[in-house]
Amino acid sequence: MWWVFVWEKGYQEVDSVVSSVTTKAKGVTVTNTSQLGFRIWDVADYVIPAQEESSLFIMTNIIVTMNQTQGFCPELPDKTSVCQSDSDCLAGSTNTHSSGVATGRCVPYNGTLKTCEVAAWCPVEDDSNVPKPAFLKAAENFTLLVKNNIWYPKFNFTKRNILPNITTTYLKSCIYNAATDPFCPIFRLGKIVENAGHSFQDMAIEGGIMGIQIKWDCNLDRAASFCLPRYSFRRLDTRDQDHNVSPGNNFRFAKYYNDLTGTEHRTLIKAYGIRFDIIVFGKAGKFDIIPTMINIGSGLALFGVATVLCDVIVLYCMKKRYYYREKKYKYVEEYEQGINNEMDQ
Amino acid sequence: MWWVFVWEKGYQEVDSVVSSVTTKAKGVTVTNTSQLGFRIWDVADYVIPAQEESSLFIMTNIIVTMNQTQGFCPELPDKTSVCQSDSDCLAGSTNTHSSGVATGRCVPYNGTLKTCEVAAWCPVEDDSNVPKPAFLKAAENFTLLVKNNIWYPKFNFTKRNILPNITTTYLKSCIYNAATDPFCPIFRLGKIVENAGHSFQDMAIEGGIMGIQIKWDCNLDRAASFCLPRYSFRRLDTRDQDHNVSPGNNFRFAKYYNDLTGTEHRTLIKAYGIRFDIIVFGKAGKFDIIPTMINIGSGLALFGVATVLCDVIVLYCMKKRYYYREKKYKYVEEYEQGINNEMDQ
Amino acid sequence: MWWVFVWEKGYQEVDSVVSSVTTKAKGVTVTNTSQLGFRIWDVADYVIPAQEESSLFIMTNIIVTMNQTQGFCPELPDKTSVCQSDSDCLAGSTNTHSSGVATGRCVPYNGTLKTCEVAAWCPVEDDSNVPKPAFLKAAENFTLLVKNNIWYPKFNFTKRNILPNITTTYLKSCIYNAATDPFCPIFRLGKIVENAGHSFQDMAIEGGIMGIQIKWDCNLDRAASFCLPRYSFRRLDTRDQDHNVSPGNNFRFAKYYNDLTGTEHRTLIKAYGIRFDIIVFGKAGKFDIIPTMINIGSGLALFGVATVLCDVIVLYCMKKRYYYREKKYKYVEEYEQGINNEMDQ
Repeated sequence: MWWVFVWEKGYQEVDSVVSSVTTKAKGVTVTNTSQLGFRIWDVADYVIPAQEESSLFIMTNIIVTMNQTQGFCPELPDKTSVCQSDSDCLAGSTNTHSSGVATGRCVPYNGTLKTCEVAAWCPVEDDSNVPKPAFLKAAENFTLLVKNNIWYPKFNFTKRNILPNITTTYLKSCIYNAATDPFCPIFRLGKIVENAGHSFQDMAIEGGIMGIQIKWDCNLDRAASFCLPRYSFRRLDTRDQDHNVSPGNNFRFAKYYNDLTGTEHRTLIKAYGIRFDIIVFGKAGKFDIIPTMINIGSGLALFGVATVLCDVIVLYCMKKRYYYREKKYKYVEEYEQGINNEMDQ
Repeated sequence: MWWVFVWEKGYQEVDSVVSSVTTKAKGVTVTNTSQLGFRIWDVADYVIPAQEESSLFIMTNIIVTMNQTQGFCPELPDKTSVCQSDSDCLAGSTNTHSSGVATGRCVPYNGTLKTCEVAAWCPVEDDSNVPKPAFLKAAENFTLLVKNNIWYPKFNFTKRNILPNITTTYLKSCIYNAATDPFCPIFRLGKIVENAGHSFQDMAIEGGIMGIQIKWDCNLDRAASFCLPRYSFRRLDTRDQDHNVSPGNNFRFAKYYNDLTGTEHRTLIKAYGIRFDIIVFGKAGKFDIIPTMINIGSGLALFGVATVLCDVIVLYCMKKRYYYREKKYKYVEEYEQGINNEMDQ
Repeated sequence: MWWVFVWEKGYQEVDSVVSSVTTKAKGVTVTNTSQLGFRIWDVADYVIPAQEESSLFIMTNIIVTMNQTQGFCPELPDKTSVCQSDSDCLAGSTNTHSSGVATGRCVPYNGTLKTCEVAAWCPVEDDSNVPKPAFLKAAENFTLLVKNNIWYPKFNFTKRNILPNITTTYLKSCIYNAATDPFCPIFRLGKIVENAGHSFQDMAIEGGIMGIQIKWDCNLDRAASFCLPRYSFRRLDTRDQDHNVSPGNNFRFAKYYNDLTGTEHRTLIKAYGIRFDIIVFGKAGKFDIIPTMINIGSGLALFGVATVLCDVIVLYCMKKRYYYREKKYKYVEEYEQGINNEMDQ
């Protein structure tokens, strides 16, 4: 009963948090591949889209299909698209996994293999083998600044995760560390994944989703300085081998170009990457008379149980129960006699 | 009273869901218009932006204004822009609906009509008539995979909408159907709108917003396998003819090009489409001693009412009330007499 | 006790709001700078990304670095990058603030200064001085239409912020004003910031985040027409000079071009701007028997306190307490005597 009070803070009114988040990634890396050559990657290249409300996508792996144009080309070979003759290809047909609309012709895909021709952005993307290790594996060292501002409407209490006692110089250099720097809002991507018990390099290959959880549990009966953010990290996309339909996290986008003749080209990019969702939650409690009353009330009512139980035992269980009953209940009959006697006279 | 318990689960502590969502659209279609010619549309073309946190926009209709450049051109004719002479056009003026800043000149819009000239991206977009039927009406057959991972912080209980007993082969082929496949996380766009009681083809023309609601009501006193997602669909943008200020759902974006001379061109696209918001909500309950106490307490307290009522009736309403009062109350006066007597002696 | 009822609506079951939001900005402005020349800015130019779920970013200031290509160029001068000789530059080194990867050479940055050369998108962006006043200061007059549709799942009650009694003609012309037009869903950006007690022009320079809060507190025991949205505005990013690590709100994105030779160019844009987050919150209450019972119960239980207190006083504090005790408790001993007597005989 008192425990409800002291521990569960039964005397407090509670409110849940309203929050706003901004994120900013930093870091640059260089890659050198036959397809793309020597290339520098900076924020504008690997953060897609450039801004989201409370999450940030960092591209860690990539399949680029350069210089696609609208046209006709052989479909990727799979059980439906491989063909011997045009009769195997149904014109106008399309399915969930096809890159275009079949023309009905059966054309050579390579020396040995023939597949159905499709109207599509050609050449069609071949995402059969994902680069290992991840193309932008250096993303492990990128840093992420999270700015979070919270508000408890009921108590009109606001606070941000950059605490007043933190100096700018500290913020310029610090990296979050649960043990040494629990209030530094700058996170190393590798550490985030590590803290969640996963390997960044594994995750980087097919992508995934990481939750950066900020918990604001505040007892507003105490000083505001005790109301502090607690960071925790969790992988949000469960990876189990037997359910890996579109595993990890990836999406396609394209950069469009017009050449001299005005025909449209595009570079199709299948971007694998890690999306960092900032999940803010928590409750604030403050003394309020209403819940106090209600809880006291309920608590006291519990004592009622005692009384009831006593009576039950005493009146129905104990050997002396008859005596107790007699004592407990007064019968009205005798009173009626009284009346009758008076009448007799 | 017991109903509170059994039905309303008064003995449980509750927690609300924390969730993360990823979506992936699939499907390809072909269009053939005088303006754009024969053209294939795939995911990279019709999903804008390429990724959002918990919603997905599928372009279903489009008004393209190709090859705009910065310059001067006649404004679209409307009640403010039509003019007879320069005197009708206020230089530098602009209003909510104008495509540019007026230069003050009155120039011919077409053979019959003159409108004020504006500095703008020229030619200005003419969105007066929206294509009917929708340009990408085939979007009805596109599919949407929703991956949802939920978490109840208080109970540290996590689950995903791809249930453990679902096989990969099933996921590769299944389509959600309330009756036959209630747990398949792959949705046919047409079906979603249909389930909400609307016509996809109507909605596709001016766009709209569909809510895909995932309800996770879990009784964690039972096995986790009973905690299942329930899908429901609702149109979120109310369409009533008398309030159709910017009806449906659309937005503008542009693809920018540089030509040889380095002057910037853009293709302006007014994209109408359906935004699918994934709304995850629900509560989990688990036995906890605190709420149990509180509810028992309150419940018992109610019995108090009975007692009070009895007394009231007995003591004030019944004809024998005087007797009852006498029996109920013992008066201290007689005792005082006793004392006095002793003193007398 | 009754106050719990009347004021706190103890007899109601409550539910929190589920909401969906769409936004649409309008407005056009013109700028004329040496770098970009005479230029018109419309929605497609300054809203980035083109669409977000429940927020909208309006670019107000900009640092453009035109025609970048992959290459080698001197780093921006700062305490780490300034050098006398190659020995000062560690090849392959990079830090949080560097625009590229050091090549190990020390090259002239300008006539007087030498800095380490980096492999990067060249020329590197120089964001040392932000344009003052803001480049798109005219954004103050842009308007923002907010369409909000809410839902209370428990009561299956839906409503939108465009109220039924609002006419289309009114919507075409109105601008939100707390006093005169409290239900007009069209906001002037300048007014929003002003209502939050800040200066738009200041905010526009380095950007920021504004919260547009829509409160839906509804008593569903009354007519639905009483359930109305209440708008309020709050700046979500606290600006204090001593914590301005990446102050305001900005992000980088790039437009990519291919030139004749096929080499990739990009225009890097550092966009400062104001993000408008639409925060919808509120509770709906409706009569329900359960909470009513619970509250009545608790309330009555409180009366129990009275009884207990009386007894305590009477039995332990008052001088006549012995008498009261005697009257209150009946002792069983005398009864036992009775039994013994019977035995004697």
